This record gives sequence, structure tokens and C-alpha cells, in this order.
Amino acid sequence: MKTRAAVAFEAKKPLEIVELDLEGPKAGEVLVEIMATGICHTDAYTLDGFDSEGIFPSVLGHEGAGIVREVGAGVTSVKPGDHVIPLYTPECGKCKTCLSGKSNLCTAIRATQGKGLMPDGTSRFSYKGQTIYHYMGCSTFSNFTVLPEIAVAKIREDAPFKTSCYIGCGVTTGVGAVTKTANVQPGDNVVVFGLGGIGLNVIQGAKLAGANRIVGIDINPDREEWGRQFGMTDFLNTKGMSREETVAKIVEITDGGADFSFDATGNTEVMRTALECCHRGWGTSIIIGVAEAGKEIATRPFQLVTGRNWRGTAFGGAKGRTDVPKIVDMYMDGKIAIDPMITHVLTLEEINKGFDLMHAGESIRSVVVY
Amino acid sequence: MKTRAAVAFEAKKPLEIVELDLEGPKAGEVLVEIMATGICHTDAYTLDGFDSEGIFPSVLGHEGAGIVREVGAGVTSVKPGDHVIPLYTPECGKCKTCLSGKSNLCTAIRATQGKGLMPDGTSRFSYKGQTIYHYMGCSTFSNFTVLPEIAVAKIREDAPFKTSCYIGCGVTTGVGAVTKTANVQPGDNVVVFGLGGIGLNVIQGAKLAGANRIVGIDINPDREEWGRQFGMTDFLNTKGMSREETVAKIVEITDGGADFSFDATGNTEVMRTALECCHRGWGTSIIIGVAEAGKEIATRPFQLVTGRNWRGTAFGGAKGRTDVPKIVDMYMDGKIAIDPMITHVLTLEEINKGFDLMHAGESIRSVVVY
Repeated sequence: MKTRAAVAFEAKKPLEIVELDLEGPKAGEVLVEIMATGICHTDAYTLDGFDSEGIFPSVLGHEGAGIVREVGAGVTSVKPGDHVIPLYTPECGKCKTCLSGKSNLCTAIRATQGKGLMPDGTSRFSYKGQTIYHYMGCSTFSNFTVLPEIAVAKIREDAPFKTSCYIGCGVTTGVGAVTKTANVQPGDNVVVFGLGGIGLNVIQGAKLAGANRIVGIDINPDREEWGRQFGMTDFLNTKGMSREETVAKIVEITDGGADFSFDATGNTEVMRTALECCHRGWGTSIIIGVAEAGKEIATRPFQLVTGRNWRGTAFGGAKGRTDVPKIVDMYMDGKIAIDPMITHVLTLEEINKGFDLMHAGESIRSVVVY
Repeated sequence: MKTRAAVAFEAKKPLEIVELDLEGPKAGEVLVEIMATGICHTDAYTLDGFDSEGIFPSVLGHEGAGIVREVGAGVTSVKPGDHVIPLYTPECGKCKTCLSGKSNLCTAIRATQGKGLMPDGTSRFSYKGQTIYHYMGCSTFSNFTVLPEIAVAKIREDAPFKTSCYIGCGVTTGVGAVTKTANVQPGDNVVVFGLGGIGLNVIQGAKLAGANRIVGIDINPDREEWGRQFGMTDFLNTKGMSREETVAKIVEITDGGADFSFDATGNTEVMRTALECCHRGWGTSIIIGVAEAGKEIATRPFQLVTGRNWRGTAFGGAKGRTDVPKIVDMYMDGKIAIDPMITHVLTLEEINKGFDLMHAGESIRSVVVY
């Protein structure tokens, strides 16, 4: 079949809107009509050439929502007409990691996904006979895409695509980091570095968890209003402040340090500050942001020996098929907000504008609606 | 009163055995006759001048066992004749940290202890009218010492001083790192870097916890026999191996990586290897060793984002007054071994020989018996 898609033919070039050939779903796969997709920093990270493992030409996009249109042989958990969110972190339920119950980082299709291929080692996309690669196992910048059955989460049908697509990455990453990975408890003091889309979702996750102080940190003063809208209690503009000054100020606000801190900047220096502002004895810092290739985090081991914990999270620690439908419920029940974060709605033809808005810091989330 | 003591008059000089003046216990303090004390790397670290906050002249030693001989006003939890282990990590039960239940790092007397003073801001030791400072709140290199009531753990009277003194630091640090801080579960794979006294106690803690593979790592082949004696299942001599080679070998032995790894070397490069050999998704690395001043740990944040956890432990996460008596019970019940680790028994006059043996790597633990 044919599908309209925004193709990344090479790094550092705008996406091109073309008509691709798409093979139908093979055994264990499903064909999904993508109804909406967010444009995430990770797409830009790859397109801008920062990901040393980025593969071109490919169909980017990993934050979508759509409708199953066809299923391959052996697919039993979804059927045509089901509404789904594609999962760049699948959930097979059978691999060592899924069975451990200790992590969401399912390994079932990791090897092929990392190569831009479906689990059978081939791509479904092509353009004039040339292979076009998949991206993060999702490729939501295509109106139709093929996904492994284990990489779709079935969601309720009354959830609007335009907003629920954001649950495919940003919302789940931020809210899940708080509620799943950190397991923030009522009364905990939370500090969030970086008030972009992820940081705002950390803030609303912390509010939902009953946190006491929710301190938001950014060097852009315009983000204070955004943070307060989602539950931030204190704002700190750390522009020009040293690490020591920032830590001292946070220790003062939180009466001893953060019970949990979150880095949503991807800056390794900020990650250090986020660790060191944690409370002696138990404070835990969680890295969400993706750092530039080759960058390293560092601290004095004394910080850990005196009881701070350094951790990370991917997709908010959420198990895709188990937890994503619950987050959609939370949204539909009004426990978390998404609508105000969708600052721009674009057509597929306007997708490069979405990247421009992101680079300029002018959007929280731009969404393409097909 | 008078007491015989080994005094560190200055850094990088042998201890001198002299007779000190010792003031009796003030309110909330107890006088303890030290019956035996271990010589720990931390004493050497301070004596050798590596601790930038080391205070001289002082009475070192923090790993002792003895008998209460006198109590100050208001002391109710111990009485003369009670057998006790001094605690460099006290347990007041009232500070924010004690009340949190989340950490053993009691802050009640931290400020004065760090200055070599009792909680009232003065020292009980003097020599010819000159103040001699306390060390880690213990100063067990003195036959008699004064301690805050909250800094002694009452233990059973049938425990021999010569071996139970080791519970005052090394045993609790190693065993507690496994059973308290890490909470290793039956079937977990454990990797231990550095098979000195702490590492051997980590091994026996892992065995006690029911660990599956217990991998010991050292660059001294003689330590293999020591490790196996306490429950090590696999030995890896990493001399000449790169970090990548070491990690690959451990991943192979443990079928994916360590569930828990422990650094008992104090070497920040080893700490990195210990983190990176952990299992993707959930592996936790715990730093026990004290690093050289100014040294930093580093890794790629990707290591944490993919589910590894970096933590530390002090005094094995043990609450002194609550947990130390239980570890003495474990020893007396034969659940952990101490006797074979006490490789040298010395008189106070021979104490400098104990430091020499340690520096030469010829002792597991030297103990001074008064």
C-alpha cells in the first residue's frame, strides 16, 4: 500500500513529505493508521545528527496514537478498529526483563529495533525501491505504519488522538518518572530541573503523588508561569548561579535537600547539581534527559556514601501495555492535564515548522494531526 | 584519671604510646574501658595525612569493644559493667534522620564529632596540659575513653572482645552493605571488588543472604583462597584487564550482569567498573570504599537511564544501637565468621606494627588487645 510520510533522508536536513510504499503486517505485526503524532526532542536529536547510532533514510516519530487497520497472522491482543498508542519500549511479557518485574526495558526486539528494522530483520517502508528505515520501532511521522503486536498499547476509544498521542512519550516519561521510577510519596519534596514538556509532566506527576514542595528550576523566566500552572510551588532561576549556590538554595527551600530530584535537561553539569541537592541519607536523583554523545556525569563518591542515590529512567519506568492505558485513564479522568501543553497543532506538511518551534523554545509540544 | 593510649601527635608519624589525662564522663556520657580494638584502613587514611579534615594531636581508633566503667548524669540505657561497642555512627533516635527511618546517618552530634570534640565542644583527653582530640567520636586506641551515651551499643557479655571489636566497623560495614543497604535477595548475583576485610565481609553477607553467584575480584591472586573460605563462588583476577574486558567477563559469569555490585577498594576507576558491570534494568552498585580526597566518579548517564543504580553505604547502613547487637548475635550463633579474619593480635605497644602489616597487605585484620 501507499502512505504519506515525512522522511528524514539524511541528518541535518529538513524532512521531506513523500508517498512511501508500505508492506502490510507480517506474522505478529499490526498495521496502524496514525491519527496524530507529537514532535519530541529525541526526534530532533536524531535529525540533527547528535545520535551516533541514527539511521538514515528513515521515518522518524515515536509519539503517536492511531487505529489498528489490519493485523498479521497470530495477532490476538488487538484487532482492526482498536485505538492504540505505539510503544518504543515494547512489553513482551516473556523476556528476562519483563519476567523480572523490576524493569520496563523489554529486550524482545531490542536488537532489530536499534537497526531500524522489524523483528524479522527487514523494513516495511521503501521509496522508489530504496529501503527506508523504521525509527524507535514506531515511525509515527507516517500516516500508516507497521508495528510489532507487543509494541502497541490498546487504549480507550473516547480519548482524543490529538492529546493522547503525547502519552506515547512525554507525558508517560515525566509522570512515570515520579509515580513509577521514583515512587514519590505524599509529603516528599521534589525538585525538577528543566521546565520543558518533560519537566512540566514531572511537576504534575509530583502534584498527583501528593508532594510537599515542588521546586521548578530553569534559566528561562517565562517557564515560571508554566510550572505554576501544573503544581510547582517554588521557582528558581539559576542563571548565573554556581552549583554550590544552587544546591545551598535548594537545601534551604526544602529544609535539608530534595527527597527526589529529576533532571529533564540532558545537561551533565545539571545532572550533577540535581544529585548534590538531594537530602543526605536518602535523597534520590533521577536522570530523564538524554545527554549529548560522549558526555559523562561525575561527582565525589562521598555524595553517594552519605546516602544519595543516582538513578535514571526510560519511558518513566512504565510498562507500555500495562501502564499506558492507565495513564490515558488518568488523563480522561482529569487527574493529569495534557491539553494546555499542546501549544501547536500542525499538518504533516508543516512538520518542519514543529522542529523550528522546538529549537526556538517556543513550543511545549507541537502535534501533527493527519 | 590516667589512661594508656597510642597518640597521633602529627600526620605521617608513628603513633606514640603515652599516658594521657582523661576527664570522667559528663552528663549524657559514659566512660568505657576498651578491651580490644581493630586497626582499620580509615585510621591509616587519617594518620597518613590523606584526610584533609584530619585533626592532630588525636587518639585514633574507632573499631573497639569494652566495658562501661562509669556513667555521667542522666545516662539510663547503659550501666557500669555493661559490654559495649563504640559507635562512630551514633543513633540518637530523635534527629530528622533517625526519625525518617530511611538512613542510619544520625546527625545529633555530627558537628562536634567532626571537630574531634565531645558534644559539649570540649575534649576529655589531654597530655601535659595540651588538648588531645577525639577521633570519629570513639578514640579506641586508648585503654579508657569517654563516649556519648548515644554512641555505644550494648552487646551480650559472652561475646569475646578480641573478635567482636571488629563488628564496630569492618564486619558491620561489609555484612550490612549487603543485608541492610542493598537488601540482597536469595538468588541474586553479587560481585565484590576488593577482597580485603570489607570485601570478605561482603562475601559472607552475600552468602548469608542466599546469593547465587558471588564473584570476587582482586588483582592479588592470594585473595582467591580467602574469598572462597567465606562463600565466594567465582574469582576474577582483573590485573591487566580493561574496564570493558572486566565488564564483559562479569556479564558472562552472571548471565547479564550483577544484580548488586560492591566497591571495597576506594578506587574511583574501580567504582565505575562496578557500576557498569551491573545488570541492565535493575542492577545496583554500592560504594563502600573511601576514595582519595578530590577524586571523582564518572560514567555515561546512559548507564543510569538504562536502569542501573549508583548508591553508597556508610557503616553498612546499620543503625548502631539497633543493629550492632543483632550482628553480634549472628556472630555468636555462627551465621557469620570473624575469628579467621583476625590475622594478628598485638599489644598496644605493637600498634604501629599493625599499620605496617596493613600497608604491606599482609593482614586481614590486626587487633590490639589491652
